[in-house]
Amino acid sequence: MSDTKKYAVFGAGSWATAIVKMLSENLDEIGWYMRSAYTKEHLLKEQHNPSYLSSVEFHTEQLKLSNDINEIAAWADVLIFVIPSAFIHSELEQLNVDISNKTIVSAVKGIMPESGKLVGEHFHDIYKIPFDHIAVIAGPCHAEEVALERLSYLTISCADKEKAEAIAKNLSSSYIKTKTSDDVIGIEYAVMLKNIYAIAAGIAHGLGYGDNFQSVLMSNAIREMKRFIKKRHKMKRNINNSAYLGDLLVTGYSVFSRNRMFGSMIGKGYTVKSAQMEMNMVAEGYYATKSAHDLNKKNKRKTQLPIIKAVYDILYENKNPKKVFEKLVDKLD
Amino acid sequence: MSDTKKYAVFGAGSWATAIVKMLSENLDEIGWYMRSAYTKEHLLKEQHNPSYLSSVEFHTEQLKLSNDINEIAAWADVLIFVIPSAFIHSELEQLNVDISNKTIVSAVKGIMPESGKLVGEHFHDIYKIPFDHIAVIAGPCHAEEVALERLSYLTISCADKEKAEAIAKNLSSSYIKTKTSDDVIGIEYAVMLKNIYAIAAGIAHGLGYGDNFQSVLMSNAIREMKRFIKKRHKMKRNINNSAYLGDLLVTGYSVFSRNRMFGSMIGKGYTVKSAQMEMNMVAEGYYATKSAHDLNKKNKRKTQLPIIKAVYDILYENKNPKKVFEKLVDKLD
Repeated sequence: MSDTKKYAVFGAGSWATAIVKMLSENLDEIGWYMRSAYTKEHLLKEQHNPSYLSSVEFHTEQLKLSNDINEIAAWADVLIFVIPSAFIHSELEQLNVDISNKTIVSAVKGIMPESGKLVGEHFHDIYKIPFDHIAVIAGPCHAEEVALERLSYLTISCADKEKAEAIAKNLSSSYIKTKTSDDVIGIEYAVMLKNIYAIAAGIAHGLGYGDNFQSVLMSNAIREMKRFIKKRHKMKRNINNSAYLGDLLVTGYSVFSRNRMFGSMIGKGYTVKSAQMEMNMVAEGYYATKSAHDLNKKNKRKTQLPIIKAVYDILYENKNPKKVFEKLVDKLD
Repeated sequence: MSDTKKYAVFGAGSWATAIVKMLSENLDEIGWYMRSAYTKEHLLKEQHNPSYLSSVEFHTEQLKLSNDINEIAAWADVLIFVIPSAFIHSELEQLNVDISNKTIVSAVKGIMPESGKLVGEHFHDIYKIPFDHIAVIAGPCHAEEVALERLSYLTISCADKEKAEAIAKNLSSSYIKTKTSDDVIGIEYAVMLKNIYAIAAGIAHGLGYGDNFQSVLMSNAIREMKRFIKKRHKMKRNINNSAYLGDLLVTGYSVFSRNRMFGSMIGKGYTVKSAQMEMNMVAEGYYATKSAHDLNKKNKRKTQLPIIKAVYDILYENKNPKKVFEKLVDKLD
């Protein structure tokens, strides 16, 4: 299958940089939009991103770099968005070219905090993108290990199987294995929910719970995730596939996960604000917690989400983490 | 429910010591058989096991210690066996009292290497113990964290729900939460299989695979475990419960797991023999690998077990770990 479509990546964080690296194994030219003029100049001059995965060297002749989102959006056929969910809204406000006939790929690991919508839903509702033109890239995949070319697996999900396969092919290489799926909605939710469970794992760690408890927490988390996703979008899926369980594990067990680190600081007694200031960022799971909690509350067919509820009570209701977890542990098994 | 049954633990390793500690939170008297006269004398004099979990102090007036397996077996009603599977056969050969009317609890984390039988099956076949008198204790639970009184969860499984509940009650405490199950066979297999997957995780680590791959390996392992157990004993079970998935995770992710450590040495190039000599023990998963492989081979309804097959080929067919894993990674997703 020859694929002459033009690919572009929007964003210049570590995951965006990793995705450009993957594509650069296969494509002669990759569009790459980034907000920062400094990052662009540095990339052109030094062949690497100054702030993220700086060990990754690019061949700049492969890259079509721009600080103009419209230039790249107009040029590309397949638009891969890899911008933190907190900023995607303001970035997209600058977009004024017609993207309704393009393929939109979300590699955003969260949910639109303003609307509680999945990124795919947002593109569908605002830009009239048909659902079979919307795809999602899911891990389990730490960007840092892509930089090291350590074997990693991705799942590319799209209602249109051919599109999923074409994207998968362009991301595959000796160190990236891919599979495809048609569960776009379920995987987008999984990507978002895992960050909440990583915060929970961090809180538990910060409070002094050990490995035995962590494994029980993860075992309950995957069951809770399954219930949540089933209520949102019922279809046959194996929740133990890599895109769901694998991604939960790599995030929940990693000491490098920013969501886990954020939770750990909360468990150790930091306030939400001080933890965010200390980390100089807002963990995706922070927004995901509110969205997931609110979605379940609004849903007529509510389900029990004891872990998400516990994280919500700690982050948004200012409840004492130690006391919340003392109650939570009785609901786990 | 008042429970006047007498409990005894057979074995004096770290898991046996942890179980005696749990029981000592609830029972006035606990029988404790150990082979070593030195361990018994040390316990009486110093109130702790000299070799395992030595930080745990016992009230020796609660303990009925003996080096005579028949004395303890005759005295107790509930016999908890916590002896490595490699030694249980020779220990049981000394047994000459009638135990056919006792409750037998297996906390052995393996399979009888001589016969490939589950410990429960062995007691049923050899000692004519009815199946509803046979129970299994499963984690996820590192003994070391029980010593520290870190919150841990156990699943006690028995066809007779009342027996399971009575045992669970006597193991419960402020730091041990318990649940019961009737899937004795499935849980015994899970306990055994997880050690093979921990060896696989160790081999991957030793070969230089990273966290991304580890999460994919665990995601494939739980699906493989589900297939394996379903072929052996079909019943409705949630493989993501703590006794299956939780136990897999605590073993597969722990740097303290001896199975994982054994695998890691193999991955780094040790021979099986040199790794066993270096560790001064044989990891349970070593025997489990052969048993699981042979059971599947003999089974008419074979299933695909790529991870177990890979570990088998490395440990028993002397194949090169690097090459075996290069093939294995194409079978995972």
